[in-house]
Amino acid sequence: MATIHDVAIAAGVSDATVSRALRGMNSVRPTTRQLVLDAARRLDFTLSRSASSLASGKTMRVVMLFGCTIASWFNASCIEGVLETLEPHGYDLVPVRVCDLEQLHGFFADLPSNGRNMDGFILPSFSLDDSESALLSSMHIPAVALDARSASRLPASVMLDNKRAMNDAVRFLRRLGHRRIGYVAHPKPAPFPASSYLRKDFFLDAMRECIPDAEPVVFASSSDMDAMSEDEAMAAMAGRIASSEHRPTAICVETDEAAVAIMRHLRQLGIHIPEDLSIIGFDDHPTAVVAGLTTLHQDPQHMARLAAQQLLALMQGETLNETVTTVRATLIPRATTAAAPALQ
Amino acid sequence: MATIHDVAIAAGVSDATVSRALRGMNSVRPTTRQLVLDAARRLDFTLSRSASSLASGKTMRVVMLFGCTIASWFNASCIEGVLETLEPHGYDLVPVRVCDLEQLHGFFADLPSNGRNMDGFILPSFSLDDSESALLSSMHIPAVALDARSASRLPASVMLDNKRAMNDAVRFLRRLGHRRIGYVAHPKPAPFPASSYLRKDFFLDAMRECIPDAEPVVFASSSDMDAMSEDEAMAAMAGRIASSEHRPTAICVETDEAAVAIMRHLRQLGIHIPEDLSIIGFDDHPTAVVAGLTTLHQDPQHMARLAAQQLLALMQGETLNETVTTVRATLIPRATTAAAPALQ
Repeated sequence: MATIHDVAIAAGVSDATVSRALRGMNSVRPTTRQLVLDAARRLDFTLSRSASSLASGKTMRVVMLFGCTIASWFNASCIEGVLETLEPHGYDLVPVRVCDLEQLHGFFADLPSNGRNMDGFILPSFSLDDSESALLSSMHIPAVALDARSASRLPASVMLDNKRAMNDAVRFLRRLGHRRIGYVAHPKPAPFPASSYLRKDFFLDAMRECIPDAEPVVFASSSDMDAMSEDEAMAAMAGRIASSEHRPTAICVETDEAAVAIMRHLRQLGIHIPEDLSIIGFDDHPTAVVAGLTTLHQDPQHMARLAAQQLLALMQGETLNETVTTVRATLIPRATTAAAPALQ
Repeated sequence: MATIHDVAIAAGVSDATVSRALRGMNSVRPTTRQLVLDAARRLDFTLSRSASSLASGKTMRVVMLFGCTIASWFNASCIEGVLETLEPHGYDLVPVRVCDLEQLHGFFADLPSNGRNMDGFILPSFSLDDSESALLSSMHIPAVALDARSASRLPASVMLDNKRAMNDAVRFLRRLGHRRIGYVAHPKPAPFPASSYLRKDFFLDAMRECIPDAEPVVFASSSDMDAMSEDEAMAAMAGRIASSEHRPTAICVETDEAAVAIMRHLRQLGIHIPEDLSIIGFDDHPTAVVAGLTTLHQDPQHMARLAAQQLLALMQGETLNETVTTVRATLIPRATTAAAPALQ
């Protein structure tokens, strides 16, 4: 049976180049790669992924941990961004789902007995506790937080500047003459603390700073919404906004998906948008364009690329100059914001 | 160093149960699993994924091949459905992207030299040629076509009944009094032949059958749209529909995303929807609800679950009773369809 060395001699390259070429790594020039592939075919040589893993001590697996739904716009964009960055380097991207906090803790409890079966770890939207970060570190598994809530104890993290974004939203509304501004939380929050939960406090900070004499209103999710369907909870939230005693003239909503759904219910209640009420969402989700929603645009695919680049550097043993990368959201004015009613 | 057998004795179970428990397979009862995990921890035993792969000849990798964009609603839903079906069995789901036909052929050309480094293969929306199907078969890699264009030569496939769906759409429009009905292809087609391309011919079949004396109009993508941006191409298509000599009173559009974008441009051209023109999309994409679009609902996550179940059976050496599974699309009437103008 041909060995990797036989292929190297036949192709006139080093053993390492054969290994890299057959694993599809992009550090090999296309012409060299073709030489190696031709030689391997002639000699009927195949590279066993498992065997080369054992030999190198590398698994070529990068695990990405998701909170239940992978098919959301945000998470799917994260997969895309990580994959396009990792694939030229021959790594498998392995998505793993955990559906509640118990499963999350179980995942970490089992890590030691599963062995060091990943070369790297990307955590979109999760916050690990100190013992979990320490465990990864003790197992020498480089990890990057993507869309982290705070500068975590992981070796690197990519964060969205939610504070600046909420400041931009409040200033934009103030310029349109709004003073009675509300914040609307997602009526059906995810089972994990998400970075979007930070937006409420940043909104309140921004209100205190920009319109100090105004009293902001917060429409929070409540326990009676737990038993409701997604759409019922959106309708209930719209009802609460419509019937609030001092109805705001503008609202900031935690996510576009909630903003679009609540807006539909508000219109059914006879509230004209933007004439009676201005609405700003968050994300620039594909539905925001269709609904003409003013929103704060973020680019999860770009954030994922940055996280994957940091992870690649860590997996290659490099020291990062910047362990925390912060990206900005951009306000995109569309058709759901207008001058405050009193000024018209 | 402790062996798998030491752990088995300490936990009072078989070697195979230790292996299954440590690989997280759901065929092990939770209490047994805990016994094994405790014993493994006491003995400081870890199961190397690569070592157990070499020992079993199984890689525990299932590869899913995508045409470039993973972050689309359809593809992300497919990942979710496959993952939720495979994860209890301990398989990694490894998404791989190819961006054009050359990369697709390259992927298959390289398969033999990469060795049999996957236990199974799922192909969403691709059609393989005979030599590619034969290659997988000769390498003993079970493969399932998901959203196949036709009953392929792969061991199993899940298909959407596009023919019946287009029939339902045409009958629905006929009942509303429409006779001049058009079909609108996606102005920017994907680089791979997708199953959605079949809808045009099924639409024409349905027209011949249901309204034999009517002359259907087809608005196809044209080469001048290649250089345009997505949105410019949508605008150009809307312009072509609006200015066509015998403008149809209803159109079926290949996908919801195209339907929603073209509809926005048609409205800007002063065409009232549904009063002047009824529109039916295809998919029930999240934007369809927001746009109030009448559409043909399909559930890619469900189709992906079916494909993954077929693959599991094949990987376990079972013979399938049905190699082709066909699922139906359902017409969902919303606000973009109404009685034909002449009847109002």
